[in-house]
Amino acid sequence: MEIIQPTLLLNKEKAILNIRKMDHKAKENNVRFRPHFKTHQSAEIGDWFRAEGVRSITVSSFDMAAYFASHGWEDITVAFPVNIREIRKINQLAREVRLGLLVESPETVEFLSRHLGHPVSIWIKIDVGYHRTGIEWNDFDAIIHLAQNITKSSKMHLSGLLTHAGHTYHAKSPAEIETIYRDSVIMLKEVRFKLQAAGFTSIQISVGDTPGCSIAENFGEVDEIRPGNFVFYDVMQMNLRSCSPQEIAVAMICPVVTKHASRNEIIIYGGAVHLSKENIIDHEGKQLFGLVCFYDEQQGWNRPLPGTFVKALSQEHGIIQASREIFDRIQTGDLLAILPVHSCLTANLMRKYMTTGGELIRTMAAEV
Amino acid sequence: MEIIQPTLLLNKEKAILNIRKMDHKAKENNVRFRPHFKTHQSAEIGDWFRAEGVRSITVSSFDMAAYFASHGWEDITVAFPVNIREIRKINQLAREVRLGLLVESPETVEFLSRHLGHPVSIWIKIDVGYHRTGIEWNDFDAIIHLAQNITKSSKMHLSGLLTHAGHTYHAKSPAEIETIYRDSVIMLKEVRFKLQAAGFTSIQISVGDTPGCSIAENFGEVDEIRPGNFVFYDVMQMNLRSCSPQEIAVAMICPVVTKHASRNEIIIYGGAVHLSKENIIDHEGKQLFGLVCFYDEQQGWNRPLPGTFVKALSQEHGIIQASREIFDRIQTGDLLAILPVHSCLTANLMRKYMTTGGELIRTMAAEV
Repeated sequence: MEIIQPTLLLNKEKAILNIRKMDHKAKENNVRFRPHFKTHQSAEIGDWFRAEGVRSITVSSFDMAAYFASHGWEDITVAFPVNIREIRKINQLAREVRLGLLVESPETVEFLSRHLGHPVSIWIKIDVGYHRTGIEWNDFDAIIHLAQNITKSSKMHLSGLLTHAGHTYHAKSPAEIETIYRDSVIMLKEVRFKLQAAGFTSIQISVGDTPGCSIAENFGEVDEIRPGNFVFYDVMQMNLRSCSPQEIAVAMICPVVTKHASRNEIIIYGGAVHLSKENIIDHEGKQLFGLVCFYDEQQGWNRPLPGTFVKALSQEHGIIQASREIFDRIQTGDLLAILPVHSCLTANLMRKYMTTGGELIRTMAAEV
Repeated sequence: MEIIQPTLLLNKEKAILNIRKMDHKAKENNVRFRPHFKTHQSAEIGDWFRAEGVRSITVSSFDMAAYFASHGWEDITVAFPVNIREIRKINQLAREVRLGLLVESPETVEFLSRHLGHPVSIWIKIDVGYHRTGIEWNDFDAIIHLAQNITKSSKMHLSGLLTHAGHTYHAKSPAEIETIYRDSVIMLKEVRFKLQAAGFTSIQISVGDTPGCSIAENFGEVDEIRPGNFVFYDVMQMNLRSCSPQEIAVAMICPVVTKHASRNEIIIYGGAVHLSKENIIDHEGKQLFGLVCFYDEQQGWNRPLPGTFVKALSQEHGIIQASREIFDRIQTGDLLAILPVHSCLTANLMRKYMTTGGELIRTMAAEV
């Protein structure tokens, strides 16, 4: 396998270890593992989860649900507020699989009650502090009112409460991530208590962002976890200390096209259309679009190089700021491995993986 | 045409007007128009240029060159420093079309002199201040030395000097963009003078970023311009005043999935996998990922709404910060039009366009 242009390399062994570790933690905590498949978007990688006994999954769109349904997955939650314009897809899917939907607005529940053709599971989206979507956790009246409207419909089965505590991504330390996780569970239990008091039984709790699920050892009284990114991890997770550099399972292999000695910059073929423009400010205050590792065809990629990072991306170019020592060791035509900042967006752009064993794996987009 | 999920809508009339305007300006200035096709990546949109008489194009990868070559384009410059690992593709292309390559390093020229199988045109990449790639414009010795090495090979025809003055994207005003444009041309003419003094004749000058080519009325003594983004324009260009809001030819039509009255936020189905994470800080200091317009199925999209913008993007969600008045006028299930910050990256992600006339247009990625 000769790499000549940006290629998303996947270390299958690392990904499977990441899957096993999370699956094991879920089993130890006696919670359902419903991994989010938006990260990898691949039926073949889905099979690696299935091999561990996973049977229920999360996706972020109805098209993704249809893709995984066509690959034998029968219990799928679409963790995105229902887009009522997709009602035909919803009804099609609800006929084929055990479909979970996310709702938070009375208008959507009303629409579904009129248009659903088949039974679905309904999760109420709760906002525990991320403030993207969901009903605020302590707006008990609104939550109970929504639950009442849901249960009025014979087509909607109220499964429980679902949250994404995405504010873990802004945490300053693993301790803060753990606190966010624990507080989220406390809030959801409080909501469940109120719902039980209002007569709603069997209310489940679903949580799951990768930082929280990676760092918390004790998942508490929840029914399921839905992390996704952990299968690959990335520089963002490493920066949050949700993973070690060694656990990152994907790297973009990029050819060096030129060097600029006056500023210790290395230009790679590998840009925003490969890695995405996602970036972070690291602990030293540097904005970075990826970390840089040496790459060896036999050995794969190595640890991130000190003092060296992707400082900017154009459509096809990446600019690496290198230490002088690293700069001198790299030549035009060499291959470097770039650890992506956000592996979900990188995988979505590339639409295929090359495993370190030389196997080609496609995502759903490459199959359409 | 019923829109149910994020759809990249293309106003064909606007795009053709943008093409005609730039083509007309090039003709008035008596310079070759070699538009960059990385923005649209579509053979069909390429035909709109051909209809205006355009015969020479710029692309950013050899795969893109091969795609357009297969659609009848015969004069193609790959405006990216040669990646020597793609030598087989280069030789294949050089056999089929008039291929222009970009070089800046002696190692690459040396490699090409040994491995080229067919004649190619060579452009020396000059850095006029953007500091991404290129030899610094006033490093005359290095430029002359490279020119000498190029002309030693019978396979390499030295066409001239090429620059991308991408620092126009950081300009604070149209006047500053015009100054950058004018200064770039002065620098390149100085380089050409030095090369002529060293015995190199027929040295052409190729320039072309969209801000510079949109704002400068007089292109000066250059031989060709290579703007790309202008075919669609976007919020970044509008912010630079390279275009008016009315000239933006693409918008992402997105369904509203929920609203949060406590913070005047509207959640759309439309995220980083649709728009890209490209963002700008606007004149008021706000970070924005898109502007928001009303959308009407018959009338298309309208002007950007005041006080309303995309403030954040997740993988599939967009969060719109709205004014109270706009917030109240938008309902769950409505469609909104989002003007993208960087139309090249958005088009690359979506891989297809729906024209306002209901026609489906694919990019090269959708054909593979």
